[in-house]
Parts: sequence; C-alpha cells; structure tokens
Amino acid sequence: MTAPTPAYDQLRATYARVHQLEHFQSLGMWDGSVNMPPGGNEPRAAAMAELGLVIHGIETDPKLASLIEAAEGEPLGDFERASVREIRRRWRQSNGLPAALVEAMTLARAKSEHAWRTQRGRNDWAGFLPNFREVVRLSRETARFLGEAQGLTPYDALMDAYEPGVRSADVERIFGDVKAWLPDMIRRAVAKQAANPPLEAKGPFPVEKQRALGLAVMKLLGFDFNAGRLDVSMHPFCGGVPGDVRITTRYHEHDFARSFMAVIHETGHARYEQGLPRDTIALPVGRARSAGIHESQSLSFEMQVARSPAFLRLVAPIIREHLGDQPAFSAENLVRRYRQVKPDLIRVEADELCYPAHVILRFEIERALIGGEIEAEDIPALWDEKMMQYLGLDTRGDFKDGCLQDVHWPEGLFGYFPSYTLGAMCAAQYFTAIRKAMPDLDARIEAGELKPVFDWLEANIWRHGSRFETDELMRRATGEALNPAHFRAHLESRYLRD
Amino acid sequence: MTAPTPAYDQLRATYARVHQLEHFQSLGMWDGSVNMPPGGNEPRAAAMAELGLVIHGIETDPKLASLIEAAEGEPLGDFERASVREIRRRWRQSNGLPAALVEAMTLARAKSEHAWRTQRGRNDWAGFLPNFREVVRLSRETARFLGEAQGLTPYDALMDAYEPGVRSADVERIFGDVKAWLPDMIRRAVAKQAANPPLEAKGPFPVEKQRALGLAVMKLLGFDFNAGRLDVSMHPFCGGVPGDVRITTRYHEHDFARSFMAVIHETGHARYEQGLPRDTIALPVGRARSAGIHESQSLSFEMQVARSPAFLRLVAPIIREHLGDQPAFSAENLVRRYRQVKPDLIRVEADELCYPAHVILRFEIERALIGGEIEAEDIPALWDEKMMQYLGLDTRGDFKDGCLQDVHWPEGLFGYFPSYTLGAMCAAQYFTAIRKAMPDLDARIEAGELKPVFDWLEANIWRHGSRFETDELMRRATGEALNPAHFRAHLESRYLRD
Repeated sequence: MTAPTPAYDQLRATYARVHQLEHFQSLGMWDGSVNMPPGGNEPRAAAMAELGLVIHGIETDPKLASLIEAAEGEPLGDFERASVREIRRRWRQSNGLPAALVEAMTLARAKSEHAWRTQRGRNDWAGFLPNFREVVRLSRETARFLGEAQGLTPYDALMDAYEPGVRSADVERIFGDVKAWLPDMIRRAVAKQAANPPLEAKGPFPVEKQRALGLAVMKLLGFDFNAGRLDVSMHPFCGGVPGDVRITTRYHEHDFARSFMAVIHETGHARYEQGLPRDTIALPVGRARSAGIHESQSLSFEMQVARSPAFLRLVAPIIREHLGDQPAFSAENLVRRYRQVKPDLIRVEADELCYPAHVILRFEIERALIGGEIEAEDIPALWDEKMMQYLGLDTRGDFKDGCLQDVHWPEGLFGYFPSYTLGAMCAAQYFTAIRKAMPDLDARIEAGELKPVFDWLEANIWRHGSRFETDELMRRATGEALNPAHFRAHLESRYLRD
Repeated sequence: MTAPTPAYDQLRATYARVHQLEHFQSLGMWDGSVNMPPGGNEPRAAAMAELGLVIHGIETDPKLASLIEAAEGEPLGDFERASVREIRRRWRQSNGLPAALVEAMTLARAKSEHAWRTQRGRNDWAGFLPNFREVVRLSRETARFLGEAQGLTPYDALMDAYEPGVRSADVERIFGDVKAWLPDMIRRAVAKQAANPPLEAKGPFPVEKQRALGLAVMKLLGFDFNAGRLDVSMHPFCGGVPGDVRITTRYHEHDFARSFMAVIHETGHARYEQGLPRDTIALPVGRARSAGIHESQSLSFEMQVARSPAFLRLVAPIIREHLGDQPAFSAENLVRRYRQVKPDLIRVEADELCYPAHVILRFEIERALIGGEIEAEDIPALWDEKMMQYLGLDTRGDFKDGCLQDVHWPEGLFGYFPSYTLGAMCAAQYFTAIRKAMPDLDARIEAGELKPVFDWLEANIWRHGSRFETDELMRRATGEALNPAHFRAHLESRYLRD
C-alpha cells in the first residue's frame, strides 16, 4: 500500500482539467488554419479569449502555490517527483507575471503582428518600428519579471519557456563553435556541388496526386491514421492533440519536393505526439520535453532519415508511382535535389546546411535586444552585417525578406529560435548512437525496415515525455549531454565527403 | 438616459461567457462528425465532458437565481424582458440537474453514439443494447429531474428543451389527426403515381461534380460563404456557430438527387443561423426559437421552395450544366422524382408524405420509453408493428434500417422527433401566408427571384431569434397559431390534385 499524497492528487486533477480545456485551444487553432472562413475569425477570437481566461483562472488559483509546496513534501516516487517539478515549472510560467503586463503584452503583440502582415509586403520597416518598440519594451519587462523569479538573466528566462534548463551561455558557446566552421563549410559545399546540379522535376503535379504521395510516405513512416490526419494550411504545422494529431502541408503545383519533405518533417513531430504515453498525457510531465526536442524528432525524420541516400532510394519508386516517371525522380537526382546547398534569404526555405546560420543570426540579435545592448532600430544594420558574414548575402534595404520575414518577433516570441538548431544537433547525436548500435542502418532503411529507428526514438524519447530534464534525457539516450561535434560530423560527411 | 439595470447587465455578461464557451462545443461536435479519426474519440469525449462541466458551473452559480429575480424587477424594455424570460428558461434547464448526472450523461452518450457508428452497420442491436440501456436510464433520470422542477411530465420536460411551451398532449392530438388521414393519403398518392414513374438519372456522378452542384445551389439560395462552409459527414447536419455556419452532406455516386436536396435542406437551417442578428447572438434571446422553427426553415427551403415545379424548372439547367444532359434532368421528370411517394425504411430518405409517419412512430415509442411504459428491449417489436400499420412495411430483424437508423436515440436525444413534423406544418403555414401576400410567387421563383421569400423569412422569423414565444411568433408571421390544416391542404394539393 502506498502512502497518501493528497496534495499531489489535487494537483493532478487540476492540471488534468487544464489539459482537457487546452484540447479546444488546439482544436480552435487547427481549425482556424485549416477550415475557418474569414467571417469565422471574430467569433473564434472572442471564444478563444474567453477560454484562455478560464484556463488562466484555474492556473492562477492562489491555492496552487501551497498545494505544490505540500506535494513537494509528500512521499512521492521518482516519476511523481518529476511530475511535481514540471507542475511547478508550468505554475511559475503562469503566475510570474502581473495581470496588467500580460494584458498590455497581448494587446501590443496583436497590434504589431496585425500591422506586420501588411507592412512586411510593403517592405515597411519604418512603419513597423513604433509597434515593435512597444513589443520589445514589454518583452524586456516580462523577461525581467520571469528572470527575477527564477534567478535567470532576462533572455534566459524567455528561452526557458521553450528549452527548460538550457542557458544562453551554453547556446553561445555551441553556436560560437558552429560559427567558426559553418561559413567555410557552406562555401566548400556550394563549390563541390557546382559541377553537378540536380535536374528540376517537371510539373504540374496535381494536388490530389501530391496528397496521395504524402499519405503514402506518412504510412511508410508509421503515422497512425487512426489517431491523426493530413490537411492543408498556409504554413505547415503539427497540431491537434495526442490521440488525434493533425499535420498540415501546402502544395505547390510545380514543386512537389517542398511539400513532400514538409509532410515528412511534420510526421516526425506527429509521431512524437502519438508516441507520448496516453496514461500520463494530461499532466505536464506527460507532454513533449521542449521545443528543441520536438524539433529533434521532425529533423530525425527529415534530415537524418529522409534525406539519406538509402531512404531516397526506397521512396524513388513510390514517387514515380504517384507522379509518373521522369529523370528527376531517379534516386541519384533526388539525393542531389535534397542536398542542394544554396545560401538564400528566407529561413523557412533554407537547406540543412544554411539553416543554422539563419538561427545563429537571430539568436545573437534577439539576445542583445532583450539584454538591452541594442535597440530595435539597430536590427537592420546588424542583420545586413551577419547575413554577409555567415551566408555571403547582401540584404541592405530588403526588410521584407530580411528582419521582417518571421512572425516570431512581431508576435513577441523571443528565445524560441535557438530550439531549431538545438533540435538539429540532438537529431544528429541520436543517429550517431543509433548507427553505433545498428551498423547496417542504411541497408535496413533502404529495405524499408524503418521500425528499429522508430523503436529507438520511442524507447529513448517519446515514452519519457518530460520525465527527465533535457540534459539527462540526452545522456540516457546517447551516453552524453548535447555535443555539437556529432552535428558537425554529420554535415561534413553529407556535404563534404559523400 | 435609461435607468440602470445592474442585475440584467450581469446576466448578460454571464450568458455571453457561456456563449463563448459553447463555441467550442459546436466546433467539437462538427469536427467529430467531419474530421475526427476514430482514435480522437476518447480525448474528445473527455474534453467535451470537462467543457460541459465548466459551462454547467457557470450556469449553476447560485447567484444567478437571485440575479434573475432582481432583473425581472428592473425597468426593462420589451426586448430585455423577453431576454430575461429566455435566460430564466435556460437557467431552469441547467439548474434542474446535478453535475454528476450531467457528466454521466455526457460520457454515456459519447460511448453509445461512438459504438453505434459501427454497430449499426453490423445490424448489431444486441451489442448496442447495453450502452443504450444506460443512456435510457440516465435520460429518464434527467427527465424526472427537469419535470419536477417545471411541473411537467418527464417526456414533456425533455421535449420542452426543443419546443418550449409545446406539450406532448398537443402533439398527440395533432399527430392523432394526421394518423387518421395520412396512411390513406399515402396509398392514394402511390396509386396515382403508379402509371407515371420518374426516370432514374444514370450515374455515376463523381463526388466533385456533385459538390460543385451543391455549392451552386447554396449560392442561389443566398448562403454566405464568408460565414460558413460545406463538408461531408455520415449524417447531413447544420453546425458551427453564427458567423461560421457549417453544413454537411453525404454523396451517393449513383443518386445525385438525395445529396442535392440534403444540401438545400441544410442551407435552410444555415440561413436561419446566418440571419440571426449578430448584436444579440450571445444571449439566449438571440438564438433560434426552437428545433421545430429551425426545421420549418429547412423545410421552407426544401419542401415549400425547392420541390415546387417552379424551382425545379429554375434549377434543371444548373443540374444539366454540372452533371451533363440526360432525359432524367428535364424539369418535368425532376418534379416527378421529387414528388415520388414510396414508403421506405429510412426516415432521412423518406419523401415528404411518408415522413410524418416515421416521426409519429418515433414519438409514440420514445414517449412510452421515457414514461417507463416500455423498456429498451421492447423497441424492435413496437417498431415492426407501427411500420406495418403506418407504412405497410415489414421490418422484422432489420435493426440497421430500423430502430438503429437514427443517431438521436444513441445520443440520448429524446423529445426531439416531433419537431420535424411540427416544422413541416409551420413551413406550410408560412407559405399560405406568403402566397396570400404574393400571388405570383411561383412565377418569381421560376425567374430566380427568390429574395422575396428570404426577405419574408428574415423579417418574420430570423431577425426575431427567441424574442417571441412560438405561438406569438406564428401569430405575428401568419395571423394564427400553428394550424395543421395548412399542412394537410399543402399535401393534398401536391399529392392528390396537381
């Protein structure tokens, strides 16, 4: 018989309620991106606001603080102890800010993001600046509040919401290392590929056929259609809830390759969500570990598995079956196509090798901005300088495809960007471990035997949810903490040697 | 300057909150029928249960009783007085039930309805029965609670939720009258039509073309696509929220006619929702008057407008444009097709003349079931007996197309069925009034001039929401309370004389 843990039991019930209500936030978001007609926007926004208030009310109930404290003193097992740690983390996020600041931030974000939608198209940095200054001012205040409560620097406090336990000093060290070798590696890869560019596939490829191809690759990748679906939205994403995970893509009639890979990427996110243990899913400890670990799943699928020659040999016949035969669909050409390195302005369309440059640039700028070392008006000059330094691109005067390109800053999302590249690094590290345990991995992949990969991810990542801190999760899975050397080795092997 | 009405103002704010949260109940329901994979059922059911509890919590706040009483004493205008009346009605519905019963009912309904989805196809009455017995048990308990609070019989208490103010004794009287002449009218109509059956349209008709045809007729009928959409579900329905009204249909490759008319039917429901005034939509008084009045809108569109020879002459060329030309698409044949009387097993596919027989049968069975005169296991025998009596059909052993055919009972919706036929009667009565005011109605319809019909419905029904009780609404619109003689006259004219 186990000892009673009344405080923990109450916390469990409270956060289960929050989980059930968040179901509708997820559904409302998914539906808003996939189905909603324009006239639905106003009633949806009002409904989402009310639901947010209900959830906030539960999470800021003054009784929670003493319940958490009491639970920490209860005779809990290891899992329950981790569960309380994650509850406290979540509680701190919801209770660290004065209501007036939250409200001011919500308004400033909405105003800035709304105006940005048209200002970006008009390349209107000057118009954007006044709204954005207010977002920056309030974000700094938010960061200061959260940081003081946790003994963190302001930027670290923001980043902690996405990457619990990861500090910007670590990120700076890791990214500093990458900066030392990445620009040169990009130049060498571009030079190496110059003689042998990929053939472009000749479209159009009807949406229905691309969709059937996407469904076929999702099936190959073990997506559970009993617990999810594929739809269309302007920006691909993975939404829904565990048990009903919904991914989206966007089809380009003349370029099947982007949608194909986007589906694979989102399938990686989806399998993480589908693989979280259902019996603890209602608790913070049962949810995904962090934004970076989430990204490491999508990038395990996209970068480690799907862009490998073995996988492309496996799927080449499937692509031909759906879209017809043509020289561009040979496995060799698909490998060239999906490895093409091409420094370009836009982060979301960047290739694997250039992507970290986009992230490092944003990390350096936003960290300085939140830290008060620079002001909003200093961003364009810094952007130009770093884009030239890291990718050799001249961006002067181009705000649209420069510092106005992402929705993150207009929405006041600071501290998120590092997660993209931390995820890529974790994925590379997983596959070093997987290859060590399974030296014939490529042969298996080419034979369509993907289950060992899924089993490894399930056993080492998915089933743990947030039970372990990121550091421990990485150590248990791979034998060491995050080590960017694996990422570098992966890139060198793929772009300089193969 | 108006006198202050603090109690009413507080009630308004409270019911606006309820309205915002009900948004997600509607969305969850629509999504569950249109998109949700089977695995989504369990998390959705749990989330719906929690949301139901939150709403129930707001609606059962003990302060509301005294606020309503106080508001009834405030210096309110006529509209506000009606608003308080509808708030009290709604308050009574919500406060008659213990929270535990509401939760148990939500879970039992979800379980029964979900299992029914596969059990129906397998003709599995025995498998369905255990879940259903629980739904019946909880429905009786619900009915008893609600009835005691309002001084109504249990069945009347359930029916009052759909048809405020209508009592089963009235319905019995009206349906008793119909039973006296309907079976004979059906026999005479069948005999009259025997010599001249309609040509069957030759399919297949691809789903995409049927969908395009459905969208075209929705446009003709004034559906606002900025504030709604058309999708597919097993059972056609009108869902969503005002501002984002979502109708569904189901396509049969070899029978375009059913889906075509189902879209028109649901468009009638949708225009009522789209036509409710937006500035009072968050209040009970701003919502649709009743299930019967709702059905009277869909049947005004389907039975009064769309099955008229004038309308069929108008749409025949549109049908040919989408599905190709063939003899079955002549206006004359469409009229024969859409007037064909053919006693059959399925309610939702029943023709106008046979439909009331299906409703009367269900009304009689469910009234006895809730009243405790019969048990769930008695239903099949009663079903067989009444189907033979009213429609001359042998249904023994056929549960799939017998008592398992409708979603209502699996979902615990008792007291709803009478509304379908009450709605048909209201619609017939509206069009007696419209034809009196507009003797050239058919010529206008044939010319595509449908706006006068929409304007009449908007002015007399849609814009009033629930401001008037059903009786007064009917009197204001047509000069008299519900009078089934108009329905009989309409049927005689269409099926025995034309």
